[in-house]
Amino acid sequence: MAVLETVPVLFPAQAEAAAAASSSTSFLSTSTIIALTVFFALLCACIVIGHLLEEHRWANESITALLLGLCSGVVVLLISKFQSSQILVFSEDLFFLYLLPPIIFNAGFQVKKKNFFKNFTTIFLFGVFGTVISFCIISLGAYLLFKKIGVANLDIQDFLAIGAILSATDSVCTLQVLSQDETPLLYSIVFGEGVVNDATSIVLFNAVQSLDSSNIDALTALNLLGTFLYLFLTSTALGIAAGLISAYIIKTLYIGRHSTDREVALMMLMAYLSYMLAELLNLSGILTIFFCGIVMSHYTWHNVTESSRITTKHAFATISFIAETFIFLYVGMDALDIDKWKKSNASPGTSVAVSSILFALVLVGRAAFVFPISNITNCMKKRESTKIELRQQFIIWWAGLMRGAVTIALSYNQFAISDKEETADFALMITSTIIVVLFSTVVFGSITKPLIRAVLLRNAKSAVSDATDLPSLEELNISFIENCDPSEQPNTPPRRKNSLRLLISNPTRTVHYWWRKFDDKCMRPVFGGRGFVPFAPGSPSGARDDEAS
Amino acid sequence: MAVLETVPVLFPAQAEAAAAASSSTSFLSTSTIIALTVFFALLCACIVIGHLLEEHRWANESITALLLGLCSGVVVLLISKFQSSQILVFSEDLFFLYLLPPIIFNAGFQVKKKNFFKNFTTIFLFGVFGTVISFCIISLGAYLLFKKIGVANLDIQDFLAIGAILSATDSVCTLQVLSQDETPLLYSIVFGEGVVNDATSIVLFNAVQSLDSSNIDALTALNLLGTFLYLFLTSTALGIAAGLISAYIIKTLYIGRHSTDREVALMMLMAYLSYMLAELLNLSGILTIFFCGIVMSHYTWHNVTESSRITTKHAFATISFIAETFIFLYVGMDALDIDKWKKSNASPGTSVAVSSILFALVLVGRAAFVFPISNITNCMKKRESTKIELRQQFIIWWAGLMRGAVTIALSYNQFAISDKEETADFALMITSTIIVVLFSTVVFGSITKPLIRAVLLRNAKSAVSDATDLPSLEELNISFIENCDPSEQPNTPPRRKNSLRLLISNPTRTVHYWWRKFDDKCMRPVFGGRGFVPFAPGSPSGARDDEAS
Repeated sequence: MAVLETVPVLFPAQAEAAAAASSSTSFLSTSTIIALTVFFALLCACIVIGHLLEEHRWANESITALLLGLCSGVVVLLISKFQSSQILVFSEDLFFLYLLPPIIFNAGFQVKKKNFFKNFTTIFLFGVFGTVISFCIISLGAYLLFKKIGVANLDIQDFLAIGAILSATDSVCTLQVLSQDETPLLYSIVFGEGVVNDATSIVLFNAVQSLDSSNIDALTALNLLGTFLYLFLTSTALGIAAGLISAYIIKTLYIGRHSTDREVALMMLMAYLSYMLAELLNLSGILTIFFCGIVMSHYTWHNVTESSRITTKHAFATISFIAETFIFLYVGMDALDIDKWKKSNASPGTSVAVSSILFALVLVGRAAFVFPISNITNCMKKRESTKIELRQQFIIWWAGLMRGAVTIALSYNQFAISDKEETADFALMITSTIIVVLFSTVVFGSITKPLIRAVLLRNAKSAVSDATDLPSLEELNISFIENCDPSEQPNTPPRRKNSLRLLISNPTRTVHYWWRKFDDKCMRPVFGGRGFVPFAPGSPSGARDDEAS
Repeated sequence: MAVLETVPVLFPAQAEAAAAASSSTSFLSTSTIIALTVFFALLCACIVIGHLLEEHRWANESITALLLGLCSGVVVLLISKFQSSQILVFSEDLFFLYLLPPIIFNAGFQVKKKNFFKNFTTIFLFGVFGTVISFCIISLGAYLLFKKIGVANLDIQDFLAIGAILSATDSVCTLQVLSQDETPLLYSIVFGEGVVNDATSIVLFNAVQSLDSSNIDALTALNLLGTFLYLFLTSTALGIAAGLISAYIIKTLYIGRHSTDREVALMMLMAYLSYMLAELLNLSGILTIFFCGIVMSHYTWHNVTESSRITTKHAFATISFIAETFIFLYVGMDALDIDKWKKSNASPGTSVAVSSILFALVLVGRAAFVFPISNITNCMKKRESTKIELRQQFIIWWAGLMRGAVTIALSYNQFAISDKEETADFALMITSTIIVVLFSTVVFGSITKPLIRAVLLRNAKSAVSDATDLPSLEELNISFIENCDPSEQPNTPPRRKNSLRLLISNPTRTVHYWWRKFDDKCMRPVFGGRGFVPFAPGSPSGARDDEAS
């Protein structure tokens, strides 16, 4: 399996020299080393530049990486005399095997579980039905409009694939433009939607690829829904099981008594194992590792030593951060894929037209489900303060317009498979997808932060409205909800007075209450968690543990 | 560049099915997923079993991983009906690009700098001259003995390569059998030697591969020495420069004020970048990243926040631990390389004879430099307590007999290159190397720990003798030597009375004294380090930093 495919055409002199010398001076091929050196130097530059630009309100790390990638792509293009802009070929394996899992795992690990589960219905509706609506609109729109501008060599399966490809929002960029602390409700909805959406669009894409286009009937849709529900439930169950097993192993063996490194290694490996197992069983690895992260932060994280907690929290965040920057750098460098541009053979006008159509469809497709679903869930909610305001709906719509690496990976998968003959239209689809991704990330990514401030935070009324998601006095009084995860500090101990009255008046709280009861009675005694780990006499502070390990 | 080459022959049914379905159900090939799943499951098993066996004095994690790898190799062999024992093909790229750098970097980062630099002369003599002596003896011995047992198809270059291959000691296994706390002197010598030795043997190996065997004269040896010194100095300088740049960037930008993740990411990326740069410039990446680790622990580590310190210390150790376990698992699974065994076409007798000869040469080759060099350095030392006793010499000889992944990687590089025609003797060399590695790791690895206890620690006299390396009262009084690194706690503040008298009586201390002065005057004000980082008003304890990030 080729993880990092280098392009020897880039440095023909060195590559030939290396081949001629046949590893007489090094065990590694020169082109690989050059590619990795350039890449890691760019990553370092991204971090430093990203830090310097942090105060800048329009910029963020994604955009820095994307633009830096574009610039180095141009430099490479000039050096190679317009033969190639790539140092590393975009590889789905690298992306799906090594870059995506740590990002999604870290998201599950650091997500504020309270907000996530509180808005679970909304998230699920957005992530599943929203994605399906968006998929239908984009497919139909592309089918109707592309023929008018002369793009004729696509069959029905290609149009459905375009719909699935462009329905995948970019959860990575969302993490950077929305703040979990400033706008917790929006963050949990948009990011939660992003994770479910990734799973949905990948399921849709797989379904489309295996579709027999000559035999589409009403049963197909029902079949798809059944497949999705099966995948969702089994993937989630697998993730939860992996998390619980890791908690049980670490609690039972109490590995921390001996070694922080072993605990951290076991958490990393178990999480990754759950992803690989899900992929092996043809489930959704993204969902699995996301729920594995949630369970690990709820149980396993509390079973390890203090130094392991600090290490895991920051190490997972760091790995995720590096993977994110890597992806954007990659996408930026990949954008100038000169072969595809040559092959697409399209006039600039056609290129712009196709990209504009696709982007307009993305806008319409997202609007078509965000506003209706928001209003439907608003009708179901009784408390005025938990409803999603129109201006919040607008931000949800806006923040989900960005398209990222999943879109590019799926696009390459559909339109650049070597065993299909590559037509000009296929190459055109790839270049148009790249334009949509670049445009949405750079333009929307840089506008979103100031926009949120302008629409929500500067407005005192709506700032309060969004802040209702933070525990009110009443909620602190109840404290039914488990509120401790790696990103939060331990709260005041729960008080349970007046519970009966509140149980009746707050039906949504009841679920949390029973879950908490079940958790304390059945789960925590077995799997550990906050307050359920045997006290180690030798390590009163926990902070001294790192000396013993 | 193929990082993980899977063997599709192993699971032909699945591989074909996956190829036929052409990623209709997943974006990853099934054989890759199966291989990774099995591998990560085995890694988890290694950690758990290693923990359970920790109290067992004969076992350690390396041996557990090696045996587990062997067992799974057997299982795979049975499943594939003796077609293949491999799930992943041993790849030099994977080893030299991704597994070795974190191990060596972590070693530099965690090494007790005081011990390392105190014994630098000894380490350097062992690592350079010792390796050269061992190389000559093994090459000559193999040349004289192999012809007698009917191995005739090797030319002079192959014999020299065998010498270089088997001169590479295994620094990874050494880390596990020697304890930095119990036997600090031995640990610093044997491990320090291992790092320098890796560099020397790789330089020798490269020199041998580029050798024109028809044109060997006295100048060749001189040439080799010059090359080595050039490589040693430039590699070290590059590592130090990379470490200092990272310290300067983090100190100047004071990134920690904003994000722990960025600091940790920058340290990781800079370290890796130094390795890649060294490889790009055809220097020794191992030496570079080792010194980069030392400089980072001396300067950079003190410039970051408290949570970054805990995270880096444990995250680097964890990554190194996973890489080590991975390597031993890999070597274990790779040992049953059925193709090579078939190709070698040798009778069990020849196989055993070749392996025995090689192993005997390793024993003799190491004895031929450990005892003479130890006694030479003893003559140069004035204080009785710093001399290396005979029983310590014995342990140094013994602990360096293990051969590991570097040996296997070099062996594959020499004897399994595809563009050479593979003869039976070449395959025999590979299988014999594998036998030597397995035997030395399992037998010597399991005996070393009990042996050290029997020879050194249970003996009160030598326990004291070895403990002289710990600061004596007099030394604590002087405390010229910088004594703080991630593995040590801050000591009492240095007192500098009586310095003149001690400067005269302790010439070796003088270097440390002047280094310390230079460090405090010139280096630390620029690059930071303990006590030279501006105090952040918002974070008095440092431990609260992780909330802000």
